[in-house]
Amino acid sequence: MNAEIITVGTEILMGNIVNTNAAFLAGECAALGLSSFFQVTVGDNEQRLLELINRARERSEVLIFSGGLGPTEDDLTKEVVAKACGRKLIEDAESRAWIKKLFADWGKVPTENNWKQALIPEGAQAVHNDNGSAPGIILEDKGNHFILLPGPPGELIPMFRDRIRPYLEKLSGAVLWSAMVKLIGIGESKAEEEIRDLIDAQTNPTIATYAKTGEVNIRITARGKNEKKAKEKAMPVVGELKKRFGSMVYTTKQEVSLESEALRLCKKKGFKLSVAESCTGGLLAGRLTSVPGASKVFAGGVVSYTEKIKKKELGVRGKTLKSHGAVSKACAEEMAQGVRDRFGTEVSVSVTGFAGPDGGTEKDPVGTVYFGICCGKKCVVKKRHFSGNRDRVRDAAVTAALGYLREALL
Amino acid sequence: MNAEIITVGTEILMGNIVNTNAAFLAGECAALGLSSFFQVTVGDNEQRLLELINRARERSEVLIFSGGLGPTEDDLTKEVVAKACGRKLIEDAESRAWIKKLFADWGKVPTENNWKQALIPEGAQAVHNDNGSAPGIILEDKGNHFILLPGPPGELIPMFRDRIRPYLEKLSGAVLWSAMVKLIGIGESKAEEEIRDLIDAQTNPTIATYAKTGEVNIRITARGKNEKKAKEKAMPVVGELKKRFGSMVYTTKQEVSLESEALRLCKKKGFKLSVAESCTGGLLAGRLTSVPGASKVFAGGVVSYTEKIKKKELGVRGKTLKSHGAVSKACAEEMAQGVRDRFGTEVSVSVTGFAGPDGGTEKDPVGTVYFGICCGKKCVVKKRHFSGNRDRVRDAAVTAALGYLREALL
Repeated sequence: MNAEIITVGTEILMGNIVNTNAAFLAGECAALGLSSFFQVTVGDNEQRLLELINRARERSEVLIFSGGLGPTEDDLTKEVVAKACGRKLIEDAESRAWIKKLFADWGKVPTENNWKQALIPEGAQAVHNDNGSAPGIILEDKGNHFILLPGPPGELIPMFRDRIRPYLEKLSGAVLWSAMVKLIGIGESKAEEEIRDLIDAQTNPTIATYAKTGEVNIRITARGKNEKKAKEKAMPVVGELKKRFGSMVYTTKQEVSLESEALRLCKKKGFKLSVAESCTGGLLAGRLTSVPGASKVFAGGVVSYTEKIKKKELGVRGKTLKSHGAVSKACAEEMAQGVRDRFGTEVSVSVTGFAGPDGGTEKDPVGTVYFGICCGKKCVVKKRHFSGNRDRVRDAAVTAALGYLREALL
Repeated sequence: MNAEIITVGTEILMGNIVNTNAAFLAGECAALGLSSFFQVTVGDNEQRLLELINRARERSEVLIFSGGLGPTEDDLTKEVVAKACGRKLIEDAESRAWIKKLFADWGKVPTENNWKQALIPEGAQAVHNDNGSAPGIILEDKGNHFILLPGPPGELIPMFRDRIRPYLEKLSGAVLWSAMVKLIGIGESKAEEEIRDLIDAQTNPTIATYAKTGEVNIRITARGKNEKKAKEKAMPVVGELKKRFGSMVYTTKQEVSLESEALRLCKKKGFKLSVAESCTGGLLAGRLTSVPGASKVFAGGVVSYTEKIKKKELGVRGKTLKSHGAVSKACAEEMAQGVRDRFGTEVSVSVTGFAGPDGGTEKDPVGTVYFGICCGKKCVVKKRHFSGNRDRVRDAAVTAALGYLREALL
């Protein structure tokens, strides 16, 4: 079965926004086993949209539209779909009631335009929108399945996941189940190399790798007649990946991040954590505190951006700075020890390096970063070199620091 | 003149990557005054690509392709374009020499496939690729302008900006000039309301607003016969925006960020800066240190994520925490004073608030943030409420803190 994604909106043709909806929908269709040969973006123009629908319905059974369901005159997706199918628009009572309720909640009065959003093609099914006033629409017509979705991703994504996917699963006779194998300490191309045979042989489950700065995520998506069957298809591959990558796998759960995993390990051991940052300038603390409830484990940190502050706030010795410099093994170690003792924590991490574009030495060029990790009395220092610009070096250093922290806690 | 953007790549149809190239190219075409009615994505399939080219060349004079110029058998964009135009592929000597040089630099030996990248359709013009081995191609055929670009954005964007834009400027008889008016302290919809008349009347220059968390950027792009004429078209609108938004405009330069502007103002006054963060957990320091050379002005900061650290490292009084709590006017003020004195800086900023999802009080629910700003002896405290999830509250708080810092320095 073929699916075609049709994005309606002049703002995409003008380049004002990136078409993330198409990527999301394409990924969902691929996982559902629907083939996709074209994605088309068209403006808010009746004639061109009508031509496109007529062409697309010949080559694809499922047509998924995003955008053009708003209240203004520009919004004409359902009007043109209705026209292409020779249907008139009729009011859907539930959608009208929902619009009424929403506006009452907002303390606003709907205008005539807003009621237009309650209209759907005759014989179509309105799809409830939990996050907005425009209902989605499912219309079956002469062997085609028209699926109309609102443009804002905050409305489209949950509507698709909760209400459209089950419909398409029924159509394709398949239910999906996904796992995410997250790796630290390996690059994307190396990771792909390790599982080249699995990627080449993939059909069900599908395997897709995603590179994040400093880590690699691998999504395994299986389809089956029901969730149990789908999961049974996926789990052997998840197991195989865990076997191949060993301790590089820090989780197989979508919702777990490297920072939440590091904090979990700290908490499990009853440890408190502190950090001392130079080149990452607060980003490591920022990543750790992105986790709700981080304060149960994370005491805080010092951003020491000058030698004076390294000495005064972290107790780094003037002698160390003088003989080794601020970007050195010795300084990283003293920073980690300093913040551990000052903040009274069992565990600490320090980062000092040359993020660029200026700085660096012949021995330690831009991109060189030292990490100090103290776990109780025991401290280790790691050295890495990252390529890329200032932002990339800093982000990669934060991820590496979290990886070393995890390693020390394991 | 019409332009159509054709993206070639199965990875887009599968939803593995987001089509940022199309958005970039669309924005460039719009700014050049080229109309665009369709964007199409097609897989690496000869027959479907050929059909698409034949249809697209009837409706659009300029066809811009991205992707499919790589060395593998899947890559077939230029092969199919050559076929559609009845041309054979011939080797471009300069492209071959470039490939040879690149591989020598990389210490690798080109395979037969790599030499394939030096082939271009007869009568076409090879476009040098500063960042990769695949040349771009410009081919004029029966009134159509075929422009073939490599898929990786790091190759496509500079090639377009440096070598394709001048070609299209010549075609459309226009040169572009852009300014970016960046605002702090106003939301996007309010900003749009203020300039609704200008947006509605826009033709040349074009006006587009972009919302970033906590700030609004407005791009003004004008075209003219030459840069001087284009700039002359744009400047009155830039002036009008400066007049309407007053001190909310913190720059009209693309390359200036709120953090770089705040640091510039500090430096101009000869001030050093420090920060004390609770709910933003290091992100404010992280934003400031994203600016190269920040160490000339920024001494560092303390992330105080517990009451103990607020007391010990920042000198917040136990009494203050007891009677007002850590999220309070009094605590924000003492945090800012504390870090200013500890770090010996003239200027300091503190942030304390409820980022959520837990926490908050009836008086100060989740999203409430207090900011302390000290400039010498003088300290002020600001209170704000932000909506959205934890990430949004934290990001908005960082931007607001930078805005208050700028305000204090003006």
